[in-house]
Amino acid sequence: MIRLTAPVVLPCDEQCTVLRDAVVDVDGAGRLAYVGLSAGAPAGPGPVLALPGILMPGLVNVHAHTAMTGLRGLGGDLPLMRWLTEVIWPAESRVNAEDVRAGMLVGALEMLRAGITTSVEMYFYSEAVVDAVLAAGSRAVVTPGIIAAPGWDRLGSWQQMLAGISRWIDADGVRFGPGERIELGYGPHAAYTLPAEALAEAGAAAQQRGALLHIHVAESAGEDTAIREAHGSVPLLLEHLGVLRAGARVLAAHAVQLSDADIAVLARHRVGVAHCPGSNSKLASGIARLLDLRAAGIAIGLGTDGPASHDDLDLWNDARLAALLARLTSGDAAALTAAQALLLATRGGAAALGRDDLGTLRPGGRADLVHISADDPAFAAGLDVPDGQLLANLVWAAGARAVRDVWVAGERVVDGGTSTRVDAAQAHAALRARVTRLTTA
Amino acid sequence: MIRLTAPVVLPCDEQCTVLRDAVVDVDGAGRLAYVGLSAGAPAGPGPVLALPGILMPGLVNVHAHTAMTGLRGLGGDLPLMRWLTEVIWPAESRVNAEDVRAGMLVGALEMLRAGITTSVEMYFYSEAVVDAVLAAGSRAVVTPGIIAAPGWDRLGSWQQMLAGISRWIDADGVRFGPGERIELGYGPHAAYTLPAEALAEAGAAAQQRGALLHIHVAESAGEDTAIREAHGSVPLLLEHLGVLRAGARVLAAHAVQLSDADIAVLARHRVGVAHCPGSNSKLASGIARLLDLRAAGIAIGLGTDGPASHDDLDLWNDARLAALLARLTSGDAAALTAAQALLLATRGGAAALGRDDLGTLRPGGRADLVHISADDPAFAAGLDVPDGQLLANLVWAAGARAVRDVWVAGERVVDGGTSTRVDAAQAHAALRARVTRLTTA
Repeated sequence: MIRLTAPVVLPCDEQCTVLRDAVVDVDGAGRLAYVGLSAGAPAGPGPVLALPGILMPGLVNVHAHTAMTGLRGLGGDLPLMRWLTEVIWPAESRVNAEDVRAGMLVGALEMLRAGITTSVEMYFYSEAVVDAVLAAGSRAVVTPGIIAAPGWDRLGSWQQMLAGISRWIDADGVRFGPGERIELGYGPHAAYTLPAEALAEAGAAAQQRGALLHIHVAESAGEDTAIREAHGSVPLLLEHLGVLRAGARVLAAHAVQLSDADIAVLARHRVGVAHCPGSNSKLASGIARLLDLRAAGIAIGLGTDGPASHDDLDLWNDARLAALLARLTSGDAAALTAAQALLLATRGGAAALGRDDLGTLRPGGRADLVHISADDPAFAAGLDVPDGQLLANLVWAAGARAVRDVWVAGERVVDGGTSTRVDAAQAHAALRARVTRLTTA
Repeated sequence: MIRLTAPVVLPCDEQCTVLRDAVVDVDGAGRLAYVGLSAGAPAGPGPVLALPGILMPGLVNVHAHTAMTGLRGLGGDLPLMRWLTEVIWPAESRVNAEDVRAGMLVGALEMLRAGITTSVEMYFYSEAVVDAVLAAGSRAVVTPGIIAAPGWDRLGSWQQMLAGISRWIDADGVRFGPGERIELGYGPHAAYTLPAEALAEAGAAAQQRGALLHIHVAESAGEDTAIREAHGSVPLLLEHLGVLRAGARVLAAHAVQLSDADIAVLARHRVGVAHCPGSNSKLASGIARLLDLRAAGIAIGLGTDGPASHDDLDLWNDARLAALLARLTSGDAAALTAAQALLLATRGGAAALGRDDLGTLRPGGRADLVHISADDPAFAAGLDVPDGQLLANLVWAAGARAVRDVWVAGERVVDGGTSTRVDAAQAHAALRARVTRLTTA
């Protein structure tokens, strides 16, 4: 057991409580034992680490293809479908497992440095993704991609991809690794890249195992024309196929082009949504109806998307952008507060995954923690300001640049901005050595 | 004379050329002597500093009230007029010159750290602003505020404010200080906070001295109702009053709520625009018509606005947001490229000020330089990627976090992320000691 103390602890509970002069106890299994004020804490059971800044849960990035760090910046000025088919998919056709390992390692380190402790990864060569996550010491929900689009058969049929995931889960379990850092799920890419049968079978396999199903839904206007004509919409199709049903764990990424009826379907089946405002803006896909999704009671987290489409893997920027776009679309400067934006990036993400052990600090939860430096100019007025001002300073001004230390499952994986596990410069050099052949045809 | 070499130099010329293996020579007066490829450079006349990353001009922040760092995060969830009248102006009524000095110092250091070498400052106690800029070693166009709104008469009448600026310019000149770091101009706050006579007189005084006039224009929908009824719009009023005329140097901040006719007026009189997408979004003021302003040939730079309304003083975020919003509003993912966004933050800002010695690297221009670290994960694929990818990595992924060294007027003012002039922690502490009395009535 170790005790962390800090002048400010943000449990990221539903009210976004600000605890002053508070304590977080971490047990030997990497779980939280006590979270609360110093006054009232149990007798200290071991070493005490006094932190001078803000202690809060690690951020949860609920939609990522992080291994694409080697493709970052490619074709950045094209709309979604042209970008995918003309630039990214051709480059990806040359990607092998070692490229994925090298790219995921760079991205996992970059996310940890920004305070993102968990990411939901949809990619291929997923064993390499898991290796890199375990090497970096972060946490991931890995949902290997299932796709039947042209050019992807080099990785096998959708049936083989689906069966591979089921075999893996049946062998290793839904969660495994030190501190249960890895959760496995299913990543059927999208309704426009898979036959209906594949969606239905993936849904059934995930439900049978209590696993997450993670799928792109209604990202851009043009992608679903045929499905809209035949079934009304992708959410309606997924409902019809039984992918959405009581007890299923489904995470819909993007969810931009939704009707009121679609939102009702997502709410009815408790589908989580990965809101990706940065990616959706950069690719001109549209603005998701965040306030309507919230009003419908849908669990919403934030996703960076892959670094090839939204580049900096900085979920704080997505939290800010979510608030900015909600304010612009509603014309209401109070539409999404700093506190609400912070909760989207933490407990909202965990809720969208159906994980109550992440994104919030409470006894029994995972000790995935971020220490924000009080030395950042964002806090030049001090931490001893009113709660609202402190949260505004954290969300609007500090963000990733002020992240100092990070723990995952109770292990300090970033110390003063530096990984305790991996030499970042070496990881960059290893990726660099691999990528030239990917981007020059 | 000193020679800087780098694997990549971005002069931020009109084409956003990427120079590989290039040289920048800085003369003893803090001006650039040669900018170009190493092959073809004149014989090296002195010491050579070999930089491993990207060398580019410092960013130009064309609309700021930076001294408000002590008020950062106050009332951050209110629309513009309520935020001003209920929160900010009451707090500012307690601000004195020493508070301004302390706040500006923190903000100037924070901007330098992000690679912003020039800012256009509209505030009061402007001698204190100048002191802080000279202490930090940055560069500023200081346009002392002129305002006649309720509560502001403690600082004197608008006539006194205006006369004070004219006396100052007549004594010290439009530009002064080491490396001519300071330019003075006029800062009539807005048409809704000043009588028409004040606007006209400020315009005449600025034109007489060749000084910049910097004014808020059409920031939010409600602010100009009376003027719209009487004169059609603020741009039409300013034209009518002779504030806009041939040869006048006018910088219109925000410029959100503009008609086609207003845009034509701004273009006709070569008014520069300070586009402030972060502030405009956060306060739900609206989305400026960036693409229409560009199409009209208007010189456009980017402004952070004050840290109380848009908090992080990171102009890179505004460059990204400008591109994201342009893409969303046009539905075109190529509407504003990474290169175009970069030029908005550099040469566009200089053009909006009518300064050809800033925001671009060319012989005779100021040696205001930023060295971007190649160690950032944004460049994990290396600097030796195609030009478009390199610019995308710089703008979309690296930005402020990768700024390593900064020079202003040839003087290195940031070295490895640390000010060479001022202890930032002491500056924060000094501000902290002052602000409690401002924010607790």
